[in-house]
Amino acid sequence: MVTNVEVPGFRFSAVSAGIRKDGRVDVALAVCDSEASVAGLFTRNVVRAAPVLVASERVRGGKARAFLVNSGCANACTGDAGLAASRESTAALAGALGVAPELVLPASTGVIGALLPAERIAAQAGELVGKLSTAGAPEFATAIMTTDRWPKVAEATVRTTNKDVRVLAIGKGAGMIHPDVGPPHATMLVFVFTDAASDASELQRALELASAETLNACSVDGDTSTNDTVLAMASGASGVPLGAEALAPAFYEVLDKIARSMIQDGEGSKHIAELKVSGLADAIAARRVATTIATSLLVKTALFGEDCNWGRILGAAGRAGVWFELSQVSLRIGGVEIVRNGMGVGKQAEALANEVLKAPEYTLELSLGDGPGTARYLMSDLGHEYVNINADYRS
Amino acid sequence: MVTNVEVPGFRFSAVSAGIRKDGRVDVALAVCDSEASVAGLFTRNVVRAAPVLVASERVRGGKARAFLVNSGCANACTGDAGLAASRESTAALAGALGVAPELVLPASTGVIGALLPAERIAAQAGELVGKLSTAGAPEFATAIMTTDRWPKVAEATVRTTNKDVRVLAIGKGAGMIHPDVGPPHATMLVFVFTDAASDASELQRALELASAETLNACSVDGDTSTNDTVLAMASGASGVPLGAEALAPAFYEVLDKIARSMIQDGEGSKHIAELKVSGLADAIAARRVATTIATSLLVKTALFGEDCNWGRILGAAGRAGVWFELSQVSLRIGGVEIVRNGMGVGKQAEALANEVLKAPEYTLELSLGDGPGTARYLMSDLGHEYVNINADYRS
Repeated sequence: MVTNVEVPGFRFSAVSAGIRKDGRVDVALAVCDSEASVAGLFTRNVVRAAPVLVASERVRGGKARAFLVNSGCANACTGDAGLAASRESTAALAGALGVAPELVLPASTGVIGALLPAERIAAQAGELVGKLSTAGAPEFATAIMTTDRWPKVAEATVRTTNKDVRVLAIGKGAGMIHPDVGPPHATMLVFVFTDAASDASELQRALELASAETLNACSVDGDTSTNDTVLAMASGASGVPLGAEALAPAFYEVLDKIARSMIQDGEGSKHIAELKVSGLADAIAARRVATTIATSLLVKTALFGEDCNWGRILGAAGRAGVWFELSQVSLRIGGVEIVRNGMGVGKQAEALANEVLKAPEYTLELSLGDGPGTARYLMSDLGHEYVNINADYRS
Repeated sequence: MVTNVEVPGFRFSAVSAGIRKDGRVDVALAVCDSEASVAGLFTRNVVRAAPVLVASERVRGGKARAFLVNSGCANACTGDAGLAASRESTAALAGALGVAPELVLPASTGVIGALLPAERIAAQAGELVGKLSTAGAPEFATAIMTTDRWPKVAEATVRTTNKDVRVLAIGKGAGMIHPDVGPPHATMLVFVFTDAASDASELQRALELASAETLNACSVDGDTSTNDTVLAMASGASGVPLGAEALAPAFYEVLDKIARSMIQDGEGSKHIAELKVSGLADAIAARRVATTIATSLLVKTALFGEDCNWGRILGAAGRAGVWFELSQVSLRIGGVEIVRNGMGVGKQAEALANEVLKAPEYTLELSLGDGPGTARYLMSDLGHEYVNINADYRS
């Protein structure tokens, strides 16, 4: 557990509202002591959950006081009743806080199709507000977990000539992880808190810049959730005005940590591979190849088996819809060159690479030519535990 | 095992050449007694194996005498040495048959990166030719298996006023199955034999027409092989001239059976789902949604768990890059309506659908609007055995 996770201007709490069957804490609250700037990225899935619709509408106001988050129920595919439940639960919380309902942004994660029990959250609104604490971030992080094995918290500091600005990110996610989030449209949930004095548009741009190569470039299983949400609040408590360019590196630092933690926690995964694709005409082509490899079942099961089956990596690259010359292809696993000129280097290199594949984390560097286009992508392996978790998730 | 699998004009044989470590039969031969018309479809993967390069070059001549097929080695990513091995093995066989090497088309399946031991096949050329038999199709079908649990053979008859024309297809494939084959470009391997008197261009067109909604609309794991190959020979022994339109229905019948057999055999799968997507603007959009659902790990593991987790099907549809109105979405599982107007119908329907999901084969009908675009797709579920097979394939 991270030790110091306070950010000036923010308080956190969590309770059990009986949404989850197992009785674990399942509702989390983050509150800014004064009106904060707010920004958000939401799933680009056509099927968007009620809380995504409500939060993406409210984020446009540029101001917020609170994030109200539940696990145990996605409140997706629940129609008008779902929208009403999302509005009622945030209204109840807004009432307990004494703020306008539009300043409370909801997020939900859990099974699709179940209606959010708004009355259970409303019944806990007073308790949630009463328990708010500047040291409450760990409880918040724990309450939003679903199949996660550990809470996901990351911090960074922006050092300025005036004073330090703090950035805290809290995330959840282990399955249905292949985020594709964009401006106004995860069940990745990530919340970023900073005491920078930045307005909503700067906050939004920093979030977009920092997400492109972190949250939007990682995959557990290739499935994009109906509920993926990234929200940021800036309290301004530091008094330090920071633009998007100044905020983005710290946002990148915390979002990269959250992305790595999600992939490492990828349901049943034992390894994180950092995939670097290079040598293509442009970054779009490189990203396309990286995404295809990162979501290939044959590659993911080979990595689970700690088996240097490089033919599967080349085979996946070859079906990405991007042209390359096989004779120009090289592949390095943890720095060990295993394919050169489109052919295997030999048994000795494979033996070395097989050792690399036992490590919890390694790089896969695939060069497909001499073009300038590159992409970076984080992927997990995939084994029996993934099947266990996902064949039995609802039962 | 199918009983009568003879087609006038064709003989088959198989031997063990020691390519597979387990000593099973691993080389198969199909020969036409006279010069046959030939047609082929090959993987559209950028990474194409040596036998794909050689066969796609030779198929252009429009004439063939034999298909020489091995399991145990894909001869992919083997450079010039691989090309030479493919040419040498077919040349040795051509010598034993007394025909030009260009009339012998190779196909290989197995591990990528291993060089084909041409000399072992050459050493068995006489034996292969000596064992040729009109009743040898079952041995051919068995020799080309890799992770397959059963051989794949299908037959059809084209009834004409003159006499009947026979069509026989032999296939293999259980993993790395997400064929994308096209004209002059599987490790799906499918061989079609007919005694129709059709020229190469009619044969080619019939193969393309029949593959579009069969071999090219099925998926085990989303991975397209470097070696996928579909080859057809027409012996003309019936004396009945048939055009593409007359041949295509019989080709469709046998290729649909082979596709179903591959999906049913999908490594470790217990179920075949026939996915029907409708109501979109056009067939391309419908196919895009169908492919995304068919390759979704969350959908495949839910089906393995026999769990009516319909939210995952909607979630996968929503990330296909095709717009639809959630409120217009309905889903039927084995005829049981489970989603209506984008929302779950209720617990009773889910209980009925859960019973359907225990069957070995069922339909998933997803309607996304009122447009004319439809698509049909065959998919397997995915469970532990897939991980077992693919984490350990090479060891």
